[in-house]
Amino acid sequence: MVDDSGLDAPQTYPFLKGHGTENDFVLLLDAEGTIHADLSADRVRALCDRRAGIGGDGVLRVIHTAVIAPELAERAEWFMDYRNADGSVAQMCGNGLRVFARYLLEAGRVDPDRPIPVATRDGIKVVTRDGDDLVADMGTPAMVAGSTVSANGFTWPTVGVDMGNPHAVAFVDDLAQAGSLIEAPTHDPAVYPDGVNVEFVVRKGDAHLAMRVYERGSGETRSCGTGACAVMVAAATADGRGPGSVYLVDVPGGRLRLTWREDGHVLLAGPAVLVGSGVTGL
Amino acid sequence: MVDDSGLDAPQTYPFLKGHGTENDFVLLLDAEGTIHADLSADRVRALCDRRAGIGGDGVLRVIHTAVIAPELAERAEWFMDYRNADGSVAQMCGNGLRVFARYLLEAGRVDPDRPIPVATRDGIKVVTRDGDDLVADMGTPAMVAGSTVSANGFTWPTVGVDMGNPHAVAFVDDLAQAGSLIEAPTHDPAVYPDGVNVEFVVRKGDAHLAMRVYERGSGETRSCGTGACAVMVAAATADGRGPGSVYLVDVPGGRLRLTWREDGHVLLAGPAVLVGSGVTGL
Repeated sequence: MVDDSGLDAPQTYPFLKGHGTENDFVLLLDAEGTIHADLSADRVRALCDRRAGIGGDGVLRVIHTAVIAPELAERAEWFMDYRNADGSVAQMCGNGLRVFARYLLEAGRVDPDRPIPVATRDGIKVVTRDGDDLVADMGTPAMVAGSTVSANGFTWPTVGVDMGNPHAVAFVDDLAQAGSLIEAPTHDPAVYPDGVNVEFVVRKGDAHLAMRVYERGSGETRSCGTGACAVMVAAATADGRGPGSVYLVDVPGGRLRLTWREDGHVLLAGPAVLVGSGVTGL
Repeated sequence: MVDDSGLDAPQTYPFLKGHGTENDFVLLLDAEGTIHADLSADRVRALCDRRAGIGGDGVLRVIHTAVIAPELAERAEWFMDYRNADGSVAQMCGNGLRVFARYLLEAGRVDPDRPIPVATRDGIKVVTRDGDDLVADMGTPAMVAGSTVSANGFTWPTVGVDMGNPHAVAFVDDLAQAGSLIEAPTHDPAVYPDGVNVEFVVRKGDAHLAMRVYERGSGETRSCGTGACAVMVAAATADGRGPGSVYLVDVPGGRLRLTWREDGHVLLAGPAVLVGSGVTGL
């Protein structure tokens, strides 16, 4: 038996890797904030590098809220310190939140029988369990002005939905119409001066959608939590349903279940899995 | 301090991740052949998946030669069981061989002061150290018939070099001429009925080249060991140098140093690093 995977170096800090519908993350364990007291953009980029690093869409640092955001510590023991793959600090990430909660559950750091509050830069978020799925409360959407987007020689009208970040939702005849999405769809800079996330949507059945997403600054991705929320809200509104409805949304990386609760909150449900744990010196 | 990265599951077998000029691999430790006695294509694909898995261009299983190829066991203690990311079995991989040797060195499994013999499906290969670099003996090239390739609206004559696999080397004015390489360059199927790896090369100085490579079946990659050998052999031949010469070859993922030894063997030298180790249940 091989019972040692031991290397002399580099073995300096622990990490985990996980994903939610193939939106993937490197988790760093740093309860007291002493291991990564100075988590540089360079280290985040090195960890997220898919060839020379571990690989991920972002880093989720697991830290006691009392250390990093004491004003939130009474409401949530753990803080999700999220960084984008380019090293920038980000407020929130729906799929990241679900993977973060999976870690807390698997590591026995939270009560598995109660809702899991997680502190973020966007305030306290709550994750619950539904069978094997984890469900993130994504807050309330705001309908904003519509516009148009163009890609692959086509132009579509879009429904505008703000989920804390801006989305333009285009209902298309076929997801292939959007083309390769190597380049960003064009949008009206007067409507979206800071850019916009664009979703292309088709109907697969009653309350069942499929989508592709082009994320502002990232390109086409396998999944986008806020994008799935925006798509569901746009479709439920078009269908005359509004709050109190449930939709399935297929993304390239899997299937999400969206619930628009009567109180206006949108819940994002789906798989969140940890695929490995280890040590790295990156 | 966080001193536990412990998860309840899945933690079933050890892995490492490493790369050579950003040609990256998942290493599986299986000295006695008992952990992965039945290493399925599905598991290899799951491990190499860059979103849902660990991520890599291939898997390197570390196993005692006596277990898997006893006829080679007297000449090399360790066997490199290489699998492509699509799950298929492969003969050899130059950058993989250098990363494999890095593991043997760092784990103390070989004498660091002697050449490291590694058994492969293509026979015994030898790796040596040169400072921090690891040097793989890639054997002898064979010059084969030239042809032409086309990409991005251009057509170039090519030099044919066989390094155990076929290569068509095109000298171009500018690496950008090859375009996006989203699609395979076209080649003459009468000359290459099984396809061909295509290298685009520019000269950066005396005995200094830069290249891009489109690997048959994989697309454009960050580095290709046999491709770098083919490029060096084509250039040294064009330069009237032949065996007994040394070239630098810049690939998108870093820099390689190629030596065409007087005895005809080509040596591939460059960095090979391990970036992390851990456990997974994929």
